Amino acid sequence: MKTKKTICIINPNTSSEMTNGIAKVAKKIISSNFDITSTSPEFGPESIEGYYDEVFCIPGIISEIKKNPYSDAYIIACFDDTGLDACRSFTDKPVLGIGECSYHAANLLGGNFSVITTLSRSIPALKGNLKKYGIYDNCNLVTSVEIPVLDLEKNPKITETKLDNKIHEILSSTNSEIIVLGCAGMSDFAKNMQDKYKIPVIEGISVSIKFAESLVELGLKTSKKLGYAKPRSKKYSGIFKPFQP
Amino acid sequence: MKTKKTICIINPNTSSEMTNGIAKVAKKIISSNFDITSTSPEFGPESIEGYYDEVFCIPGIISEIKKNPYSDAYIIACFDDTGLDACRSFTDKPVLGIGECSYHAANLLGGNFSVITTLSRSIPALKGNLKKYGIYDNCNLVTSVEIPVLDLEKNPKITETKLDNKIHEILSSTNSEIIVLGCAGMSDFAKNMQDKYKIPVIEGISVSIKFAESLVELGLKTSKKLGYAKPRSKKYSGIFKPFQP
Amino acid sequence: MKTKKTICIINPNTSSEMTNGIAKVAKKIISSNFDITSTSPEFGPESIEGYYDEVFCIPGIISEIKKNPYSDAYIIACFDDTGLDACRSFTDKPVLGIGECSYHAANLLGGNFSVITTLSRSIPALKGNLKKYGIYDNCNLVTSVEIPVLDLEKNPKITETKLDNKIHEILSSTNSEIIVLGCAGMSDFAKNMQDKYKIPVIEGISVSIKFAESLVELGLKTSKKLGYAKPRSKKYSGIFKPFQP
Amino acid sequence: MKTKKTICIINPNTSSEMTNGIAKVAKKIISSNFDITSTSPEFGPESIEGYYDEVFCIPGIISEIKKNPYSDAYIIACFDDTGLDACRSFTDKPVLGIGECSYHAANLLGGNFSVITTLSRSIPALKGNLKKYGIYDNCNLVTSVEIPVLDLEKNPKITETKLDNKIHEILSSTNSEIIVLGCAGMSDFAKNMQDKYKIPVIEGISVSIKFAESLVELGLKTSKKLGYAKPRSKKYSGIFKPFQP
Amino acid sequence: MKTKKTICIINPNTSSEMTNGIAKVAKKIISSNFDITSTSPEFGPESIEGYYDEVFCIPGIISEIKKNPYSDAYIIACFDDTGLDACRSFTDKPVLGIGECSYHAANLLGGNFSVITTLSRSIPALKGNLKKYGIYDNCNLVTSVEIPVLDLEKNPKITETKLDNKIHEILSSTNSEIIVLGCAGMSDFAKNMQDKYKIPVIEGISVSIKFAESLVELGLKTSKKLGYAKPRSKKYSGIFKPFQP
Amino acid sequence: MKTKKTICIINPNTSSEMTNGIAKVAKKIISSNFDITSTSPEFGPESIEGYYDEVFCIPGIISEIKKNPYSDAYIIACFDDTGLDACRSFTDKPVLGIGECSYHAANLLGGNFSVITTLSRSIPALKGNLKKYGIYDNCNLVTSVEIPVLDLEKNPKITETKLDNKIHEILSSTNSEIIVLGCAGMSDFAKNMQDKYKIPVIEGISVSIKFAESLVELGLKTSKKLGYAKPRSKKYSGIFKPFQP
Repeated sequence: MKTKKTICIINPNTSSEMTNGIAKVAKKIISSNFDITSTSPEFGPESIEGYYDEVFCIPGIISEIKKNPYSDAYIIACFDDTGLDACRSFTDKPVLGIGECSYHAANLLGGNFSVITTLSRSIPALKGNLKKYGIYDNCNLVTSVEIPVLDLEKNPKITETKLDNKIHEILSSTNSEIIVLGCAGMSDFAKNMQDKYKIPVIEGISVSIKFAESLVELGLKTSKKLGYAKPRSKKYSGIFKPFQP
Repeated sequence: MKTKKTICIINPNTSSEMTNGIAKVAKKIISSNFDITSTSPEFGPESIEGYYDEVFCIPGIISEIKKNPYSDAYIIACFDDTGLDACRSFTDKPVLGIGECSYHAANLLGGNFSVITTLSRSIPALKGNLKKYGIYDNCNLVTSVEIPVLDLEKNPKITETKLDNKIHEILSSTNSEIIVLGCAGMSDFAKNMQDKYKIPVIEGISVSIKFAESLVELGLKTSKKLGYAKPRSKKYSGIFKPFQP
Repeated sequence: MKTKKTICIINPNTSSEMTNGIAKVAKKIISSNFDITSTSPEFGPESIEGYYDEVFCIPGIISEIKKNPYSDAYIIACFDDTGLDACRSFTDKPVLGIGECSYHAANLLGGNFSVITTLSRSIPALKGNLKKYGIYDNCNLVTSVEIPVLDLEKNPKITETKLDNKIHEILSSTNSEIIVLGCAGMSDFAKNMQDKYKIPVIEGISVSIKFAESLVELGLKTSKKLGYAKPRSKKYSGIFKPFQP
Repeated sequence: MKTKKTICIINPNTSSEMTNGIAKVAKKIISSNFDITSTSPEFGPESIEGYYDEVFCIPGIISEIKKNPYSDAYIIACFDDTGLDACRSFTDKPVLGIGECSYHAANLLGGNFSVITTLSRSIPALKGNLKKYGIYDNCNLVTSVEIPVLDLEKNPKITETKLDNKIHEILSSTNSEIIVLGCAGMSDFAKNMQDKYKIPVIEGISVSIKFAESLVELGLKTSKKLGYAKPRSKKYSGIFKPFQP
Repeated sequence: MKTKKTICIINPNTSSEMTNGIAKVAKKIISSNFDITSTSPEFGPESIEGYYDEVFCIPGIISEIKKNPYSDAYIIACFDDTGLDACRSFTDKPVLGIGECSYHAANLLGGNFSVITTLSRSIPALKGNLKKYGIYDNCNLVTSVEIPVLDLEKNPKITETKLDNKIHEILSSTNSEIIVLGCAGMSDFAKNMQDKYKIPVIEGISVSIKFAESLVELGLKTSKKLGYAKPRSKKYSGIFKPFQP
Repeated sequence: MKTKKTICIINPNTSSEMTNGIAKVAKKIISSNFDITSTSPEFGPESIEGYYDEVFCIPGIISEIKKNPYSDAYIIACFDDTGLDACRSFTDKPVLGIGECSYHAANLLGGNFSVITTLSRSIPALKGNLKKYGIYDNCNLVTSVEIPVLDLEKNPKITETKLDNKIHEILSSTNSEIIVLGCAGMSDFAKNMQDKYKIPVIEGISVSIKFAESLVELGLKTSKKLGYAKPRSKKYSGIFKPFQP
């Protein structure tokens, strides 16, 4: 019997270290009147670094939504907002991406933000999202520390130093008021950087959990009117037969 | 002794009916681990209908922030986001406007939204905000029901009918997925319209309270780096001497 | 032994009627010094109508690229440009979407175009693409005839009448100079409509084949510098193990 | 008896040195067939440096408009265009801001301009205005010399040197064709800089006076149709009772 | 001996009726301390209706500038701003187009404007200018009365009726605050329409004369730094030899 | 008797060296089933460096179109797309500019491109075009090597070195994925730079020829509906009498 409302946060890759890291951050921020489920696909890539990896995470994300049908909202814990549109079509519960939530939070705290992602190959994807979301002009810079996703937490000292240098560089060369950390794996460094630079440093996991709780409490669900209408009934074949709508 | 965290929601006009209405909505949505303070200025206009009224509400809003120094976040309950920038400069706590919160929520639920405000004279102000916030292209239409603010709740039947007709008209003539109610006084009608049209109908009071709670729980505050830096110390004279920074 | 250059056009869904239809159009327009391969995934959805279907077509598209390694360019024959970014990461050969090619062709013929898609649920995806591509302001209207993809060619008379009416409506109510047919399945109707209305009516299959030939002859390939860099080597598990980079 | 047409220029702060400085510039440029009234509020902040100060200048500006009812146009001599919208609602005479006039003049002289303001805290406000006015893309850079407003003229040598260095830096690093001086207090330096760098250096006081004269001679007044409609009759209480519409 | 400053307004076509009409409007608005020269090319098209006509007016406009070397500013009296960029390169005096001046004036009076041009063929050119000038989003609609340029004044009753109907239609269907008359030949109708509809109705001849006087009095000239740098010395041959820089 | 389809490429200036250079590039890329005609005006400027030169090239371009009435498409081989709109009005055959074709090709290969032109005076014209075409946000930088057009090929070693340095600088300081060479005279350097930097380096002559062939094969012509409607019949006088429509 389900008594509490539940948020399901999905790490789109198969790295259990990363899922555990996400779970740790999530548990710390979840409200006492909500349960949190942290999960990740059983199949697919072990990390997301670019458009190709993204594709092979989305069916796994949808599987996790299917396995957690009683959750009241879902979060996709990849800063590229991988599969966000498809998942919003699949369920009428709110589905949030940690990228979009970070951008919207930044707008509530100042407006002029810069994003630090892992590898430069992700920069165009993030810029494409900002354009699609319509808030591209509020972003001063999308830049990268050039650390692969799974290495972020292997040597936290190096990561922290590189983030620190990059923030220093951004604040010297642009009129940014806010830093957005552009990867779920950077969450642990947000607080230190925020304390050091005395400006908001946003990590998307925590933000998206609070925004998901918000939408659930508000009784607001994804609009099913146009783009996110329920998939039409049709034949899917081969390995995707189980996903047939 | 302060034990719970507190959100202070400020009706920028002096209408006590409207403050009460806002308080009622706010109490219903506030989390059990937060206190809510609903207040309004002791001086200024009895309603906000255009740029002129806006000006004479802001000092009163700032006074209310001053009188509630232990609140953890402040909400400006006018859809024009009256005084938002000034209040964000005054305090380092988060300050949210119900307009901006509604727009950001709409982006999390679909993206193509239309706004219904009270009088057509408010349309340019809302369009100006959307441009300033950088999300103008996501908005299909800003339109009005031509009911003065304080009349909204005087004859709720008429208001509901006019809103209903306007939503019908918007859905027939634009590709909108979401309706945003562009006035605090329209909040009571959101649920009925949402149930009738089966699309999200957003009212800003509830949304802004959940977003304010979110920012407080996240430990995120307004960036004081550039635009919202603390006012510089200087002489204010005359009726504004008490507001001297 | 490969002697001629080859374009591989991929129908992203599994409908063989649609693949045949695309092949017919493609063969008619391909240059004599090019070979054309028309193919479609062996698994996945039978049509693409929205974001959810899109996801389950992309691995199949990539499989087809893999099976046709000696092709000199690839075309994704879905107007949503499904999987375009991922495929561009996978291969260094040019990969074109019929949507983007149609938009760019429209810009070379006038600039003020309107798009007619199948179902209204596809409108936000197309608008999102236009924003991401940066040419949203050149598009007057994205609208739909409300015919499911696989029904387009079942009753061509009805399709033609609905397209005809829609074009008439667009030309009466907007300042459009060009019509873009927003679905591969509408290609057969382009010429008649162009002859009737004496304005360019663009269908993306033919356009994308000529643009693909162009890029091949020019020796231009997808930039691998940032967003479309080759996928990094990493573990893929489960049904996606065969796609491991 | 009023014989000549009159422009009323309002320094929104209470600094008499600054009002005198503005008056000096204004007298020099006003046409012989116009009278110029230079004034400033009797109450409020002594300088405007950010959003907070802005708020407490606007009632004073409106008071000055009230006291000068026979003026044919009003100018708000603060580069933030403080209170512009409210004043335009209050009177049907033209009301111009020195910021907007400078931007529009820059567009008539080239188009690619950069703005130099006093303190970096003003940068977001100016960028917000440029977005709201819709001409953000024509501006290469908004930057600052980091001199408080009231210090600008205290040590003119230092101000001139810092402006000079900043212009040099802008011309070296951006493709700017025009410099806009982003503060009424910088007007005295425009001519020297223009002579030195051989490019237009715009100061807003003079420009706005000529544009105000232009609108008066043209018989053009602020549109009262939507956003600037006359304030609706309603109760104002407390210190703002005298401002009741 | 030149004693007064002079504005030279150039009707870019060879229609003497139109030149006379422009001269009449110009004389009425010119300041007493300025002389006005109204002129038109001795060769070229008799009216401008589209991109092709535009081309053959520009050398004639430049000839008129050459013949009036002591003028202090030049105005191109075609709403398409025909040849504006070339003329600005040719002289360092200010050169203004009646289109751009109208748009900038509209921004000083409200911001949400609609444009009425003669023939629909001119709509894309005007939209292209608005995009280039960067103020496209402030324009609600560009529409046409479908009267050829030279017929505008042949039957003024018909013109007035069609303008009247079009303004009525614009105000009913868009949230426009201002009407811009998109052809020099419509100037005579501005006042009546303004009086009837109680909103600003802008005609570009008068506005551009006042803005030209303004720039002259301000000592502001076109920036010669980048785009409008003096033409480089080089060989011109054939009929264009006389124009060799 | 005309047997093959023909593309006519027009060098808008009178420099025969440049026409020959363009012809050489054009012949190399033209398909075997097309004929290529390379031509240039018999009168006008010997090179195009800015807005002024542009004007005096357009009648000559139109003359060349007239002299080659059986061509199936026309290319204007100046990166400013000089006279593109007028030529599109003159003929119903496709007319392409090498600038626009380069931009659209860049969008098919990545999306984030930078442009290198000859002299800085051309930068605003190119930026203006990008804005008018609606793809300004996809362009990272427009910059210049500061070599006059006719000097480009006089000392190819210097040109290559300066281009090389500039590309290095762009790739170090911006997130560009593609280089666009912003002058017909730079075409010879594209291949070397592409090989050295392993990113697409686009030269517009070759691209525009393939795109022109594409449109011809597709049976697509310029829309004559609005902006490019056939010029209306009217009197042209003086040196332009021969151009009378």
